[in-house]
Amino acid sequence: MKILLLLLTTLLTTDSFAQSTIKVNAQRIESRIAQLANFGKDNNGKGYRVAYTKGDVESRSWYINLMTQAGLEVNIDFAGNIIGKRKGNNPALKPIGFGSHLDMVPDGGNYDGCVGSIGAIEIIEVLNESNIVTDHPLELIIFSNEEGGTIGSMAMAGHVTPAGLKQVSQSGLTMAEGIKIIGGNPDSIQYCIRKKGDIKAFIELHIEQGGILEKEKIQIGVVEGIVGIVHWEVTVDGFANHAGTTPMNMRKDALLAAAKFIIAVNEVINSVPGKQVGTIGKIAAMPGAYNVIPGKVMMGLEIRDLSAKNIEQLFALISKRAASIEKSSGVKIAFQRQASSIQPALTDKKIQAEITAAAKALGFTNKIMQSGAGHDAQEISEIAPVGMIFIPSRLGISHSPKEFSTTTDMAMGAMYYCKLF
Amino acid sequence: MKILLLLLTTLLTTDSFAQSTIKVNAQRIESRIAQLANFGKDNNGKGYRVAYTKGDVESRSWYINLMTQAGLEVNIDFAGNIIGKRKGNNPALKPIGFGSHLDMVPDGGNYDGCVGSIGAIEIIEVLNESNIVTDHPLELIIFSNEEGGTIGSMAMAGHVTPAGLKQVSQSGLTMAEGIKIIGGNPDSIQYCIRKKGDIKAFIELHIEQGGILEKEKIQIGVVEGIVGIVHWEVTVDGFANHAGTTPMNMRKDALLAAAKFIIAVNEVINSVPGKQVGTIGKIAAMPGAYNVIPGKVMMGLEIRDLSAKNIEQLFALISKRAASIEKSSGVKIAFQRQASSIQPALTDKKIQAEITAAAKALGFTNKIMQSGAGHDAQEISEIAPVGMIFIPSRLGISHSPKEFSTTTDMAMGAMYYCKLF
Repeated sequence: MKILLLLLTTLLTTDSFAQSTIKVNAQRIESRIAQLANFGKDNNGKGYRVAYTKGDVESRSWYINLMTQAGLEVNIDFAGNIIGKRKGNNPALKPIGFGSHLDMVPDGGNYDGCVGSIGAIEIIEVLNESNIVTDHPLELIIFSNEEGGTIGSMAMAGHVTPAGLKQVSQSGLTMAEGIKIIGGNPDSIQYCIRKKGDIKAFIELHIEQGGILEKEKIQIGVVEGIVGIVHWEVTVDGFANHAGTTPMNMRKDALLAAAKFIIAVNEVINSVPGKQVGTIGKIAAMPGAYNVIPGKVMMGLEIRDLSAKNIEQLFALISKRAASIEKSSGVKIAFQRQASSIQPALTDKKIQAEITAAAKALGFTNKIMQSGAGHDAQEISEIAPVGMIFIPSRLGISHSPKEFSTTTDMAMGAMYYCKLF
Repeated sequence: MKILLLLLTTLLTTDSFAQSTIKVNAQRIESRIAQLANFGKDNNGKGYRVAYTKGDVESRSWYINLMTQAGLEVNIDFAGNIIGKRKGNNPALKPIGFGSHLDMVPDGGNYDGCVGSIGAIEIIEVLNESNIVTDHPLELIIFSNEEGGTIGSMAMAGHVTPAGLKQVSQSGLTMAEGIKIIGGNPDSIQYCIRKKGDIKAFIELHIEQGGILEKEKIQIGVVEGIVGIVHWEVTVDGFANHAGTTPMNMRKDALLAAAKFIIAVNEVINSVPGKQVGTIGKIAAMPGAYNVIPGKVMMGLEIRDLSAKNIEQLFALISKRAASIEKSSGVKIAFQRQASSIQPALTDKKIQAEITAAAKALGFTNKIMQSGAGHDAQEISEIAPVGMIFIPSRLGISHSPKEFSTTTDMAMGAMYYCKLF
């Protein structure tokens, strides 16, 4: 990938920007973030720009309008992905892709997906304003239904199945029905597959969704990879009995054993160095009454890490601890691995190096970090080298109306984006 | 209370019975337990003799028929309690009451309440067969809706409120509607109140519902009291966040803190000598997904003990542990004491001594123990001296189709019952 080392100036007052000559328009970014936030509200006024719903459809129209006004040649592929093309100096070169998504989770916020989408159109504006034509053609890609399972990027990577198209999405429509609503065609979805080598590289700008950059006062995260995710359903079988008449030493309390297990998971995850995370996010105790000792507990265990091998090793340690709890508590603990598991995806080392080099050129602090959340770039990594740029998000909150990134940080991210072309 | 030291013989072959001259009919007891079990089944054939339902109504008719055939003068009081009277030699003396209940929990078993009810009518049969008339009049009392909150005995003790009558029972009817169905009259319920001194004493035979007697191979439990029960709703407030992007050291995981709390409760309850029990029987984690760190957990804490003071002291220790978890886990833990709390009820010392003396006379092993479960005797203890006799229940299982007591044990219990008159 050829990088145009653009010298940038911005509306920001940071000294290091003074030497730059190209501006990203922070005001324009902020204003478009605010406009986008208006699309899709539920009856309570909460953000509900869920894929395939009215708000999603309307925001896509608005965004397509921005693209055409910026001179892009816009198409919607069979999966409903919006693709805006800009010609390069050398039509023989493969296109460089960049972009994010417009859809959100129910009761979501105004930054997840939005920052990358608004930042992407900002690149086009800046290139236009500076009369720059890149050597490679560019493709601004807005993926469809990211939050419902990265459906658009899965389709592009050839991973959408007929069964997947029949699944009901958050909108209430099946994926197939939803794709039709946004102008795609599920019956032809295999024709939107991009092969390895079709795309030179793909880069996504995104909010971090963790509190690391904010806490460490670092401006840019250079993503080394997107974690793999494995889910297990954990069942603890004890013996339900009367909570009044059963002496403490005659109990097989499934919830007490589950509590020991929850602590064991936390200890195992923290017992080795690394960025792995492990969570028990859900729990149910049966029968579930004040006066009955729980006989059965079901939990959801999730482990995430950049290394699939590390995930398996951590799980082996957790299984060992579970066996020991079984013995000491007189219960049975069983694990059911879930089909929803996702393989880790590493970003391209060269693109990482270019993002880091751009950071140095702009005088910004940066750090190599992993993405704990899934992204479209994860799917695209199977057909093209990918890179991701993170900007800080306040308190690391995401998928929430409290989600927030500053204008400064968004402009900074967009500048990095620009710097790569 | 005058005790008739009846010398009993039975169908049982135990040597110590040989000297007795009066028989309880184990065959009759077993056969009536089986007949009673036929009343009330749900669509799946599970026991469903829930108060105020068809099975409850039919079993009551059947039992009233047994009472009248045994020569009792039967009335139904305004709370739907069935009262069968047998005259004594001295009509000036206050009646001695005994009995239990016919209703069951959904999917319940054939012994809880049944053993005391069938044992009670057996006393009448044995007295009739032996031509014995006690000095005191006798009252065989079958309390209405024990499982739904000891409604019949509460009414007799004057504790039923207009609000309580409006509560919806397990049957789907309000208590008031249900009481009408079984022949009571909720509008006149205050007239079924028995004052202190109206009843000389009340004795209830019941299955233990714990595994202590079976485990220790003891034949009879002499109940020293019925435990008090206090319920708290416990709320742990942490911070919900993305389970992928939030590093382990930046979490305020409400479920991890709840796990520590569950273990702390268990440790505190076990930290002092005594028979107290403490249970977390229910739990909910919000929002409750594999990929979200729980931000809020709600639990149900129950402590039972014969001493109200001990319950408060244990709760104080638990609160202290909770405060320490709050600090170490960055969460808030709040307690909401529930209105459903029940004061402990001690049985009468004299009656305890009489039950123990009867045990010696019959050559049976016995032990003083508490009742961890609530019973009608608990309400009646406020208006009369009460006693309870426990017989072993297999594995301590109750409120379950697996509930079981042997014919031998039931007959033994009935014999003790007889021995007290």
